[in-house]
Amino acid sequence: MKELLGGVCAPKGFIAAGGQFLSVQDQKEMGLTLVYSEKICTVAAVYTQNKVKGAPIAVTKKNIANGQAQAILCNSGNANTCAPNGEQLAQECCALAGASLGLKASDVVVASTGVIGQELFFSFFKENIPHLVTQLSVTANTDAAKSIMTTDTKPKELAVSFEIDGKVCHIGAMGKGSGMINPNMATMLIFITSDVAISSSLLQKALSDCNTQTFNQIYIDGDTSTNDMACILANGMADNTYINAEEQEGYGIFCKALTALCTKMSRCIAGDGEGATKLLSIEVSHAKTATVARKIAKTVASSDLFKAAMFGKDANWGRILCAIGYTDADFSIENVSVVLKSKAGEIKVCENTKYYPFSEEKASIILQEDEIEVEIDMHDGTEKGSAWGCDLTYDYVRINGEYRS
Amino acid sequence: MKELLGGVCAPKGFIAAGGQFLSVQDQKEMGLTLVYSEKICTVAAVYTQNKVKGAPIAVTKKNIANGQAQAILCNSGNANTCAPNGEQLAQECCALAGASLGLKASDVVVASTGVIGQELFFSFFKENIPHLVTQLSVTANTDAAKSIMTTDTKPKELAVSFEIDGKVCHIGAMGKGSGMINPNMATMLIFITSDVAISSSLLQKALSDCNTQTFNQIYIDGDTSTNDMACILANGMADNTYINAEEQEGYGIFCKALTALCTKMSRCIAGDGEGATKLLSIEVSHAKTATVARKIAKTVASSDLFKAAMFGKDANWGRILCAIGYTDADFSIENVSVVLKSKAGEIKVCENTKYYPFSEEKASIILQEDEIEVEIDMHDGTEKGSAWGCDLTYDYVRINGEYRS
Repeated sequence: MKELLGGVCAPKGFIAAGGQFLSVQDQKEMGLTLVYSEKICTVAAVYTQNKVKGAPIAVTKKNIANGQAQAILCNSGNANTCAPNGEQLAQECCALAGASLGLKASDVVVASTGVIGQELFFSFFKENIPHLVTQLSVTANTDAAKSIMTTDTKPKELAVSFEIDGKVCHIGAMGKGSGMINPNMATMLIFITSDVAISSSLLQKALSDCNTQTFNQIYIDGDTSTNDMACILANGMADNTYINAEEQEGYGIFCKALTALCTKMSRCIAGDGEGATKLLSIEVSHAKTATVARKIAKTVASSDLFKAAMFGKDANWGRILCAIGYTDADFSIENVSVVLKSKAGEIKVCENTKYYPFSEEKASIILQEDEIEVEIDMHDGTEKGSAWGCDLTYDYVRINGEYRS
Repeated sequence: MKELLGGVCAPKGFIAAGGQFLSVQDQKEMGLTLVYSEKICTVAAVYTQNKVKGAPIAVTKKNIANGQAQAILCNSGNANTCAPNGEQLAQECCALAGASLGLKASDVVVASTGVIGQELFFSFFKENIPHLVTQLSVTANTDAAKSIMTTDTKPKELAVSFEIDGKVCHIGAMGKGSGMINPNMATMLIFITSDVAISSSLLQKALSDCNTQTFNQIYIDGDTSTNDMACILANGMADNTYINAEEQEGYGIFCKALTALCTKMSRCIAGDGEGATKLLSIEVSHAKTATVARKIAKTVASSDLFKAAMFGKDANWGRILCAIGYTDADFSIENVSVVLKSKAGEIKVCENTKYYPFSEEKASIILQEDEIEVEIDMHDGTEKGSAWGCDLTYDYVRINGEYRS
């Protein structure tokens, strides 16, 4: 597997466009993004678990129920959630994008991210979609990745290549998230493209399995957005043997590449959490089950006390142990050891669930770095799991507390 | 029911003592507290759900298994958790306190709060318990309440009187919590005294039921401490008809008084959360069940986005709705309304789960106050529930991130 440039345009047959445009009725600039495949794709998606869902989610679910899509339309700046006529507007946007691209409305995946509870106006789309279609190109992947951003500090895009049956295949992705938009969003959007030939049901299984291990293991602040979505389109142009059974070698190769890409995207998103100064990776090993390992990892990544300690470069291993202890799962807490790691070195701080004498000075040097790994060995089984988060900082409070002042 | 002064010494027959003393081996001052009843008491307790538990919790569980106790011993400054010989030390402390008071070791409730993973030395207790016993008095309730404090900014004590069968009865309480001690504690300790005559099994039922509605509904930062405990001793000196059946009128009266007292204590603790500038009360009405109401209330109180918005005096109702939506329970989200309230007035911000036009100016005046109530009407049933929390502030990050620097 090789990493490459090109983001969502790295797979064969995909082009993209994106930009910031003035919405006259909103009196502000908003982002607009299109991704288009020259061939019809199989499609799969996972959505927010929030009971309050953005209108675009309902429309996308309906549109891809037949397992097919050919384009993605996304705006930033307004979530189209708890707003009047949201579903109707999202449908009209799909119809307009479809018409401009020569597609059926139902072949368009639609997503929004931004303010909750404000009306989104069709005029913004009417004025800008036809223009954006003319901008579609194989080199506009970064424009697209930028125009889905909200409070993200940098665009997030990745691409990999790998081989199935001797054919070179690609997966590309762009993501945004963990930045919340004023006043109330923490939307994570992930759009993935691929030229692999694969059935929509297996594409869904691959994405769902991968999502459990990757995007669901990101923790910024526990607030599940109303608009979260990860979506994958695969157009088959790599010309590999069509994947329609789990037992096929190609399915395993595809899943492995997808999981690697999504793991890396998860790290990008966690590290760019609002106000974050550090990416925190929690690696749990020798747990009873993979689910328990993931739960423990995510609970530690979720602890405000641990997150604040990491911001303060304070090797407060007790905070880690405390969070392990209140993880909602069945496991033994008798023989836990904890190692803190970064580019600057590693240090054991806990063994057999007790204090392990360590140099505070060395620990503080390790915790200066901007990527910290916490290795937790449960000595309670054979399974492992990861989670990713960021530190809790003054800036998080500032961004979310004083945004309007 | 009347509120009175006197804290844990308000009920007949209870005396207390407390102070800060130098621990020579630790080279720091630590708090030490005693509460003593002249008559043997029935006793009940609820404990932390954390799998990692402080050694005193194991010893207290053992000591009160027979439903009896006559004294409480508590130290602050060291949690006696994940430390060598913790249980043995806690037992020795009970033996020493018992001997000094003329009691069996097993009639002493023991608790600790403070640093995890550091050895606690017996010499501290040996030097100070005999002296503290000589200080026991009916007026030392505030000394006691102060000496269980850690990063709390003020002592927390309450007392009420009420009548059962024409006899005047009392419940008193002291509590600490939501301040965490360096490096890793968020211990909440509540000690309650009463002169009501009640069986230990009904005392346990009353405390457990009350705990579900009150202390378990406090949210500061989601970190469940290893040492949390709420404990009640009742010595029967009020001379009411002995309560040993749920159907007795006296049981209902006692439960009502206990719940009122614990509700008020919960508000005290939430309002004194680390770095907090505001007490946030979440009142959910017309929910399907009381459990659903409590879950929704606690989820909103737990949202970092909502907590940061309250710090910023920002009427971001979308944050409240978003948190309701990801509450892990079964309910309808179709007809939610939200009102923000304080001494300065009240304002509706959401109706039918949609934006309800309101004056931002008026909202910001309401949110200036240091006690904010969020009223959420689910229009989905008949039950209600509350939760209490505090805002997320720069000081929370400072206290927990930079404590050692």
